[in-house]
Amino acid sequence: MNTSANWMRVFGMIGLSLWLSAGALAQPSAATSSMSMDLAEVRQKALAETLAFNVLESLTTEVGPRMAGTPGDASARVWAIAKLKELGFEKVYSEPVQYPVWERGRASCEVVKPYPQRLELAALGGSIGTGNKPLLAEVMMFDSVKALTDAKPESAVGKIVFINQRMLRSKDGSSYGPVVMARVAGASLAAKIGAKAVLIRSVGTDANSRSPHTGVMRYDNMLTRIPAAALGNADADLLERMILRGQPVRLKLDIQARTRKGQYTGANIIGEFTGSEFPEQIVAIGGHLDSWDLGTGALDDGAGVAMTIAAAKLVTAQKRPKRTIRVVLFANEEQGVFGGKAYAESAKAKAEVKHHVIASESDFGSGRIYELSIKASAPEIAEMQPLFDALKPLGIEQGENDATGSADFGPIGLLGAPVADLKQDGTHYFDIHHTANDTLDKVDQVDLAQNVAAWAVFTYFFANR
Amino acid sequence: MNTSANWMRVFGMIGLSLWLSAGALAQPSAATSSMSMDLAEVRQKALAETLAFNVLESLTTEVGPRMAGTPGDASARVWAIAKLKELGFEKVYSEPVQYPVWERGRASCEVVKPYPQRLELAALGGSIGTGNKPLLAEVMMFDSVKALTDAKPESAVGKIVFINQRMLRSKDGSSYGPVVMARVAGASLAAKIGAKAVLIRSVGTDANSRSPHTGVMRYDNMLTRIPAAALGNADADLLERMILRGQPVRLKLDIQARTRKGQYTGANIIGEFTGSEFPEQIVAIGGHLDSWDLGTGALDDGAGVAMTIAAAKLVTAQKRPKRTIRVVLFANEEQGVFGGKAYAESAKAKAEVKHHVIASESDFGSGRIYELSIKASAPEIAEMQPLFDALKPLGIEQGENDATGSADFGPIGLLGAPVADLKQDGTHYFDIHHTANDTLDKVDQVDLAQNVAAWAVFTYFFANR
Repeated sequence: MNTSANWMRVFGMIGLSLWLSAGALAQPSAATSSMSMDLAEVRQKALAETLAFNVLESLTTEVGPRMAGTPGDASARVWAIAKLKELGFEKVYSEPVQYPVWERGRASCEVVKPYPQRLELAALGGSIGTGNKPLLAEVMMFDSVKALTDAKPESAVGKIVFINQRMLRSKDGSSYGPVVMARVAGASLAAKIGAKAVLIRSVGTDANSRSPHTGVMRYDNMLTRIPAAALGNADADLLERMILRGQPVRLKLDIQARTRKGQYTGANIIGEFTGSEFPEQIVAIGGHLDSWDLGTGALDDGAGVAMTIAAAKLVTAQKRPKRTIRVVLFANEEQGVFGGKAYAESAKAKAEVKHHVIASESDFGSGRIYELSIKASAPEIAEMQPLFDALKPLGIEQGENDATGSADFGPIGLLGAPVADLKQDGTHYFDIHHTANDTLDKVDQVDLAQNVAAWAVFTYFFANR
Repeated sequence: MNTSANWMRVFGMIGLSLWLSAGALAQPSAATSSMSMDLAEVRQKALAETLAFNVLESLTTEVGPRMAGTPGDASARVWAIAKLKELGFEKVYSEPVQYPVWERGRASCEVVKPYPQRLELAALGGSIGTGNKPLLAEVMMFDSVKALTDAKPESAVGKIVFINQRMLRSKDGSSYGPVVMARVAGASLAAKIGAKAVLIRSVGTDANSRSPHTGVMRYDNMLTRIPAAALGNADADLLERMILRGQPVRLKLDIQARTRKGQYTGANIIGEFTGSEFPEQIVAIGGHLDSWDLGTGALDDGAGVAMTIAAAKLVTAQKRPKRTIRVVLFANEEQGVFGGKAYAESAKAKAEVKHHVIASESDFGSGRIYELSIKASAPEIAEMQPLFDALKPLGIEQGENDATGSADFGPIGLLGAPVADLKQDGTHYFDIHHTANDTLDKVDQVDLAQNVAAWAVFTYFFANR
């Protein structure tokens, strides 16, 4: 899908930036200069590579959906091990991760009265089902999580609560937090006032899609568990219009979701290139291997898997790194960061936490990176100037000292490992996040190449500084 | 959803055009002048009205999907009769239409080998099912209907044929014809060379949607009937990628579609305002009341229903028409123009064909009208100049003499009734045509108002000339 015109566009932009920055680097030290030249070379090579797209095409085509505990989860592990070996990673191994298995089952919703028609919905991850027979109840609408939280005790007894809060669009994903509470906590908030089930407007920015956005929810153990599902935005609009007409709206809800008894054993899949000078020191990057089941997980998080694998491969193809480069493909991020927690525990047990030079995950689609944020002291950050300089031609600015390492390196970050965030433009990410539309065609190859270039520069710098 | 800014945009454009055309109408005859002034007034009033959107909102919210023979079909008739009466149509009646009832049932498709994953599909209208147990077979890809037509006898024995022909985008819908053959005739073409089932790439221009496009198909009575379904474009891409890897791809197909025995009796719903001078002369406009089942039929053809009802109402609110204005809401267009054929037969039986002054249906979504084409002689067309002049400020040009009356007025057109086409911009129509995404949010209210204004001008002209 790449056209020459697209590549010309990238190269043109980069070439101009390099020319402009050449003057600024008038009298660098020998060490800085050598590193800067290496980083420029890594960046240019990565921009011309299609490896990440090829890896992503392979994952989405040959594995597809890979929800935790499904056959796709197991296939993805087999795929990952084979792919890392095929690409020449020197050590390829897995570390077991345990988690419960949630099964989606079927889900349907019909308006019974006063305007019979079907609504499109998807059960939320972790939800229970409606039981052997469908649930018939009147719906009660709340405009926001706050309105539901403020509702009087027993005000929704026997009702289906509908949380009709819209998600706003944002570049940095900051609009996700306030709304995702409807998904995560909505069931227990509704159960608290007596509801039999909860429906939410999808946590997504697409205004006109029928595709519901799934995602994980949680039950408060002190409260009755009730089924939870998301309506697509178009269907949430439709239900809202019905309710606003004033007559009671009765729904028939049939959800056959359940959580299996016992635990499933999955694994984090790890690939490494061993460092030549400081093999015990680790530059850890990666993405999560699991996805939701509705789409093929191209953006969430096939893109993160593909771009970090590609970056590690490209960097080591240029020169054997001084430090070990480790790519971690995490198990079951979606349903509770199981892989990320297990990774931190394993690193702690192996006394590896302190050997992490840096840790960073990509898990926000394939939009262009606009900022690098590193959690470090001011003097440490100052020493990273060649890295920030090398990212500038890609349109990437130096961010605040507020990195988390993303979901899966969050736990090891809390144990003290240095973490970084390569922040991506997520303006359109939540249009398709967790929907059936998360498929390969959503990936812009030019943007993906910009991501790979940034990850390659980042990885090369920490592996060889 | 209308903003003042949007209305300002429309009014600004119209105002300018009126001002520009004022000079051109320097010395009109008294009759022409009066008609032109009336048409300008109708046009301006219609642009400021939201009646069509309100009618469409009512239909999609209170009825929703209304596939022929379903409970939604019956609800739509009840809704239509009530709505026409509520709006003051003087005669509201129905004429029975008979047709068979096709039931969709469930449909699923899985790749069994070599890359197990699910594909999204929708059975095609009229298709049979796969029987009691799923069909397991290897898939065989053809790039086009032509390639399938040219295939050797028995070259697909026992296979599932996949027709992977892409639809191109066009303003006038002319790119639909060549591709829709895959949907209509694909099953019999595939059966002819021994296939057990046919899958087609959706006949739609959306490149990145998982939503399949349904639509009617036909069996050649001389050939074995095999199940037929459409994959969404994203899934067709996926299957294509799998096939191109070179290993045989095996599918498991479960389709439970069927056609019920016997005939269902639906109806065309008709609303009229009686003419004051020539009540026997008929200006017939309308849309089809049925829709496919996956969406709520907002564009296909809720928009046509709403805009012609609104145009008739607005025109008659201005002044009692000289001729009878008749709005026909046709039964079951989607599965074979049953309502349109029944209307022509009824008109013939009542000797009404020759009393049709003009007949025209709207059935192409809610994109702006860019051309009016009327099937008439050159002298007749010349007498319609005030009509063409009045449409110009809306951006509507005079077209060729190639009107059909659209699907439902096609049959009465063939019997000799004069027909016209108000051609709409369909550039984006086939992105959502016959999919679950055909919902109210797709309708641009400013574009809808332009349509209503054109229909009102058109209707006023023929009813009062």
